[in-house]
Amino acid sequence: MAYNLLKGKKGIIFGALNDKSIAWKIAEKAYEEGAEIIISNTPLAIRMGEADALAAKCNTIIVPADASNVNDIENVFNVAMQHFGGKIDFLLHSIGMSMNVRKSRPYDDIDYDYLNKTLDVSAISFHKMLQTARKLDAINDWGSVVALSYVAAQRVFYRYNDMAEAKALLESIARSFGYIYGRDKKIRINTVSQSPTLTTAGSGVKGFDNLVDFTERMSPLGNASADECADFCITLFSDLTKKVTMQNLFHDGGFSSMGMSQNAMLQYNKSLDCHSCD
Amino acid sequence: MAYNLLKGKKGIIFGALNDKSIAWKIAEKAYEEGAEIIISNTPLAIRMGEADALAAKCNTIIVPADASNVNDIENVFNVAMQHFGGKIDFLLHSIGMSMNVRKSRPYDDIDYDYLNKTLDVSAISFHKMLQTARKLDAINDWGSVVALSYVAAQRVFYRYNDMAEAKALLESIARSFGYIYGRDKKIRINTVSQSPTLTTAGSGVKGFDNLVDFTERMSPLGNASADECADFCITLFSDLTKKVTMQNLFHDGGFSSMGMSQNAMLQYNKSLDCHSCD
Amino acid sequence: MAYNLLKGKKGIIFGALNDKSIAWKIAEKAYEEGAEIIISNTPLAIRMGEADALAAKCNTIIVPADASNVNDIENVFNVAMQHFGGKIDFLLHSIGMSMNVRKSRPYDDIDYDYLNKTLDVSAISFHKMLQTARKLDAINDWGSVVALSYVAAQRVFYRYNDMAEAKALLESIARSFGYIYGRDKKIRINTVSQSPTLTTAGSGVKGFDNLVDFTERMSPLGNASADECADFCITLFSDLTKKVTMQNLFHDGGFSSMGMSQNAMLQYNKSLDCHSCD
Amino acid sequence: MAYNLLKGKKGIIFGALNDKSIAWKIAEKAYEEGAEIIISNTPLAIRMGEADALAAKCNTIIVPADASNVNDIENVFNVAMQHFGGKIDFLLHSIGMSMNVRKSRPYDDIDYDYLNKTLDVSAISFHKMLQTARKLDAINDWGSVVALSYVAAQRVFYRYNDMAEAKALLESIARSFGYIYGRDKKIRINTVSQSPTLTTAGSGVKGFDNLVDFTERMSPLGNASADECADFCITLFSDLTKKVTMQNLFHDGGFSSMGMSQNAMLQYNKSLDCHSCD
Repeated sequence: MAYNLLKGKKGIIFGALNDKSIAWKIAEKAYEEGAEIIISNTPLAIRMGEADALAAKCNTIIVPADASNVNDIENVFNVAMQHFGGKIDFLLHSIGMSMNVRKSRPYDDIDYDYLNKTLDVSAISFHKMLQTARKLDAINDWGSVVALSYVAAQRVFYRYNDMAEAKALLESIARSFGYIYGRDKKIRINTVSQSPTLTTAGSGVKGFDNLVDFTERMSPLGNASADECADFCITLFSDLTKKVTMQNLFHDGGFSSMGMSQNAMLQYNKSLDCHSCD
Repeated sequence: MAYNLLKGKKGIIFGALNDKSIAWKIAEKAYEEGAEIIISNTPLAIRMGEADALAAKCNTIIVPADASNVNDIENVFNVAMQHFGGKIDFLLHSIGMSMNVRKSRPYDDIDYDYLNKTLDVSAISFHKMLQTARKLDAINDWGSVVALSYVAAQRVFYRYNDMAEAKALLESIARSFGYIYGRDKKIRINTVSQSPTLTTAGSGVKGFDNLVDFTERMSPLGNASADECADFCITLFSDLTKKVTMQNLFHDGGFSSMGMSQNAMLQYNKSLDCHSCD
Repeated sequence: MAYNLLKGKKGIIFGALNDKSIAWKIAEKAYEEGAEIIISNTPLAIRMGEADALAAKCNTIIVPADASNVNDIENVFNVAMQHFGGKIDFLLHSIGMSMNVRKSRPYDDIDYDYLNKTLDVSAISFHKMLQTARKLDAINDWGSVVALSYVAAQRVFYRYNDMAEAKALLESIARSFGYIYGRDKKIRINTVSQSPTLTTAGSGVKGFDNLVDFTERMSPLGNASADECADFCITLFSDLTKKVTMQNLFHDGGFSSMGMSQNAMLQYNKSLDCHSCD
Repeated sequence: MAYNLLKGKKGIIFGALNDKSIAWKIAEKAYEEGAEIIISNTPLAIRMGEADALAAKCNTIIVPADASNVNDIENVFNVAMQHFGGKIDFLLHSIGMSMNVRKSRPYDDIDYDYLNKTLDVSAISFHKMLQTARKLDAINDWGSVVALSYVAAQRVFYRYNDMAEAKALLESIARSFGYIYGRDKKIRINTVSQSPTLTTAGSGVKGFDNLVDFTERMSPLGNASADECADFCITLFSDLTKKVTMQNLFHDGGFSSMGMSQNAMLQYNKSLDCHSCD
C-alpha cells in the first residue's frame, strides 16, 4: 500500500547489494512512494550483486562509486543532478565493512590498516558524502539524510569488533554535520539503529543466528525486518519529520530499552536447568 | 496535503484545550489523514477551551474525563468502542499540570500534596489509560500509543520544577508498559519529546519567552512547532513505524544533541561584551 | 585497609537492615574511613533487622524514622546535628519498597494505592530528605548525597514492576535537587546504579537468582558486591569527587554497557542446542 | 592532603605537557598518593613543555613516544616494566590533537588526511596502548585505565570540529576494550568527561573563554578544574572503584545534566534586554 509520501522527491541510495539488503528495500519503497531515485554502490558490489534488477524495477540508473573516494562521490552527485535536472531531496548511507571481522582478527589483535579501512568505508564515507553534497549544493533545503547504524555504537556485542567504533563514529558525524547542514540549509541528518538483520553482510558474522534468536526474544515486538526498516526510513525522508535531526533512532522492536524479557529469561533458564546440556 | 496515512484507523486524543494545543493539531491532522477520532479532556478544560469547535471540525464527539480517574477513563474507552463499533488503533496522551509551578513554589519548598497531584495527573494517568485499555482489550493489535514529553526528563531546566519528575515518570511508564503491551498485543508505546511550545500551558511559565529564544538559537532547525509535532505523531500512528517502541523520540530541531551553537553563542557573547548592560 | 578518606566527616545512613544490606556495608566502611555516622531506618526494620549490632560496631545511635514522613526526617536531622554538634557532610538513601512486587501484581494490573506508596517510600522520600535538609541547613557546603538506584530506570527488567518507575523518579530528583543544592550550597547529589545484589530485599524477587546468573555472565568484571558498592560510595563521600554531581553512576562490572558477552552467549546457546531441554 | 590511596601502585601517564595540563596534575597527585609513575609524551612535547620538571618532582623518568606508533608504545611499556621490576597498575591517556582545528578548517571543509591524523593521535592511539599492553601482559589484574574525554562526544559544540568524532571514537574504544580486558584480566577502562579546561590545548581554541563563561554559569558547581579532575582520577585508579568499567564519567560540575540554569539564563537575558548591544 502506497501513500505518495515521497511524490516529487529525488534521492540517492548507497549500498543496495541484493534483495536482502535494507538499502534495496528502501529503494523499492521510495520508488513505490513516488520518489525518483539513483542507485550507487561499489563496482565490485554491482558486479556481485543484483543492482541491475533493482535499477530496472525502479526505472533508474546505477552509478558505480567507491564511497571512500571523494571523486567518485562527486561524480554520483553530479550524475544525479544531471539525471534529475536539479538537486536531490534525500540520501541513504547503508555501507559497512570490516576486514578485521572478515579475517576474524580478535579485538585485542586487530590490524590497524584494517581499522583505518573500516572507519573510512563505514563512517568517514558518510562525512565525504555530506561534505561533497554541501560543496556542490546538491541537496534541497529541508532535505533528509539517513545512515544505518547498530546498537553496538552504545553497547558491546561480542564479535562485532571494530564495527562498533565505525558505528560510534558514524553517529557522531551525523550529529556534527547535522548541526552544520541544519543551520545552513535546513537539512536534517539522522541515523537509524536497526535490529540485527539477516542481510548478506549480517549473515557473514559467526554466531549471528543465535544472537538474532536472543534479540528476537528480548524485543517485545520481535526483531525489525528490512522491509519494516524501509517503511520507517520513508517517514524520515517525508515532509512529516522535518524537525527531527541529529538523532539516533532505534528501530528494533524495543530491544534497546530492554534489560531482560520474560521470553529471553525463560529460554536462558533452560540452559541453567538442563543438566544434560553441560 | 494529506496522504491517507491513517485511513480506516480510529483513535482517542486526550488533552486538546484550544487551537494552540499540540493535541488539537494532532486531532486535526489525524482527521485529515483519514482517521476517525474521539476527543477527551477534563470537564473544566472543555468548558474553558474550544473543544466543541474541534469536535465539529473533526466530525466527532467529546467525552469528558478526569484522566487521573480510572472510572472516567474506562468510560472514555467504552464510549469510543461503542462509537467506533470496535477497538481503537491509536491513543494520544497530552496532559500535564503542576500546582507547584502554578503557585511558584520553588523546587526546594514544594508541597507534597501538589507533587502527588503533578505525578498523578501528568504521568500516572498514562498508566491508568494503558492499564484500562489493556483490561478492556480496547486497542487493536499493532496499535500505537504516544505521550508528549519534554527534555527536562533528562536535563534540568530552571523553573520547570516537579514537571521534570512527571516527565521522567511518564517516559518510564512508556518503557515499562511498552514491554508488556508489545509482548502481549504488539502495541507500541513511545514518547515524543517536543521543543518548548507556546501553548496555553507553556505560555504560563515565567521567563518562557527567553528560554524559547535560547532554544531557537541553539537548535539548528529552530524550535519545532505544534503543527510539525502533529505531522511527526501522524507517522508514529501510521503503519510505517510498527517496530519503533519504548523510545523517547526528540522532535526538537536538534536541540537535544546540541552543546553550543554559533547562533546561541553569538547572542550570549553580546551579554558579555556590552558593558552598558551591567 | 583504610585510608582515612572520611576523617572528620559526619553522615547519616538511611536503610541498613542487616549485614547483607548495602547501606550496612557503607555504614561500616564510612566508620572505618574515619567518619562519624548516625543510622536511621523504619521502626519495623529496626525491630526485624540488626541495627543494634551495626550501631554498636560503629559506636553510634539509631534514630527511627519513616522516610516518607517529613516530621520523622526532620527529627533525624535535628538529632544528628545535636549528636554531632554541627551539620553533616554526607547522606545515604538506600530505601525501596513496592507492594505491587510483594503482592505479585502484574504491571498491567497494579494497584494505584500501592503505586503511590512505592513512589512515596522509594523516591519521594529522597526529595523529602533533601528539602528538609535544605530548610534546616543541615548539610555543610561541599557535602555529598548518594541514593542507590538500578538500571531498571533505563531499561525494562521483567518482574521489576513499578520499582522501575520509582528508580526513574529517584534519579530525576537527584538531578533536579542536585542543581538547586549545587548552585546554592555546593552540595552534590548522585545516584549509584548497582548490580543486582543478594540483599534481603533483592532475594525476595522471584527468579532473582537466574537474573543474577545472567548479569554475572554479561558483566566483564562480574556483578558488583555490596562491599564493593560501599567502597565506591566512600569515594563519592570523600573530598576527591567534589565536582561530580547530578550523575547516575553505574557500579555494575560493566553490565550497563554490554549488549552481549561471550560468556552469556555461550550459556544461552546451550538452551538452543540441548534438545533434551525442550 | 594525601591518603596513600595508590600506595604500592605503578602507572604510566601519557600527555603531560606543562603544569596547566590535566595529565600533569594527575601525575603529581598519583605520586603524592604513593604511586610510582613513568611519564611519556611526544619528543616535541617534551622539548616544548616542562616534562623534566615534572619528572624531577615525581622522582621518575620520561620515555618519549609518539602514541600513534605501536613500536614507540611497546618501548614505553617495556621500559616501564623494567623500571618498576614488574607490571603496571594504572594508565592515563590524555592526548588529543586536530590539525583541522589548528588550521581552522570548517567542519564542512575538513581535510581528510588531517581527520585521519586526528583520529589516529586522539583515539586510535588509545587502542594501540591497550592492545600493546595486552600483548605484553603489561597490566596487573584489577588494574585501571582512564582516558580523558569531553561532552562533545554526545553533543555538538560549535568549533570543536572533528575532535567530537575523536572523542566519540575514544569512548567507544574504552567500552569495546573494557569488555575484553575486563573479561580476560579484570582490568577496567573508563573515560572521564571533563569540563572545558584552560590548558595550553584548550586555550588555543578561538572563543574558548566565552564558552567557559557559559559552562561556568550553567554548571551548578562551576567548571571542574584540572586539579579536581586529578583528584577524581585518583579514585578511579584506587582499589575503591574496582567494579566501575566501560563508563563515561562526567566530571563537570553538573553541566552534562543541565538544560538551563538560572545563572546562565540571567546572563543570556542581558543580551536580549540591552538594546545598545545590537
